[in-house]
Amino acid sequence: MDWLDSVKWDRDGLVPVIAQERSSGDVLMFAWMNREALAETVRRGEAVYFSRSRGRLWHKGEESGHIQQVHEIRIDCDNDVLLLKVDQLGHEPGIACHTGRHSCFFQRLDGDGWRSVEPVLKDPGSIYR
Amino acid sequence: MDWLDSVKWDRDGLVPVIAQERSSGDVLMFAWMNREALAETVRRGEAVYFSRSRGRLWHKGEESGHIQQVHEIRIDCDNDVLLLKVDQLGHEPGIACHTGRHSCFFQRLDGDGWRSVEPVLKDPGSIYR
Repeated sequence: MDWLDSVKWDRDGLVPVIAQERSSGDVLMFAWMNREALAETVRRGEAVYFSRSRGRLWHKGEESGHIQQVHEIRIDCDNDVLLLKVDQLGHEPGIACHTGRHSCFFQRLDGDGWRSVEPVLKDPGSIYR
Repeated sequence: MDWLDSVKWDRDGLVPVIAQERSSGDVLMFAWMNREALAETVRRGEAVYFSRSRGRLWHKGEESGHIQQVHEIRIDCDNDVLLLKVDQLGHEPGIACHTGRHSCFFQRLDGDGWRSVEPVLKDPGSIYR
């Protein structure tokens, strides 16, 4: 399909993807998609990434139930980065991070070190059985 | 420095960086940093990226005047992606994109194609002399 062809996939056939919460504007996480993941995301209306560590498609929330409902997909000026506007489902407030936090970006540079500044909303042990 | 060592640089010595506007929460752009770019960003308090196409440090706004003042730097759970909270200076509203638009993510997937949905705020020809 044309719109898939106009994405500039990198040497590994991937593009970086930023997931942003629609309601709050919070940047929730960063991941990668290959062509199949993007097509599947559009088909389902839910975020499907390509897991580089596991080498396979990864339907976000498949284990945790923390599905990302996709409301909008944007692409940048170079056609090589995607931005998803999502609702983070399965918990209120939404949990995008495998550590049980709202966002994966919970560590802030504070003087000379990274400091964790966001609370754990749910014990990861109870998220992943 | 310890906090630079705890960043997980990729095989090219880079990390992905998301720049988000502090006031609006808008995701403005996506770029890369190497170790030197991150150190320089912290020293200046302004975003300095590593341009992969030019193979050198790139002080954002060095040509356009569209400097990004950095208020906060976050790192994700895997220590391999950065999120900057910035004020986009030099124009009101801020222009982060080389096309003269507010954000680089101005193309939205609309049915079967990418459609440009954000206005050009300033002619790129007058931004880059």
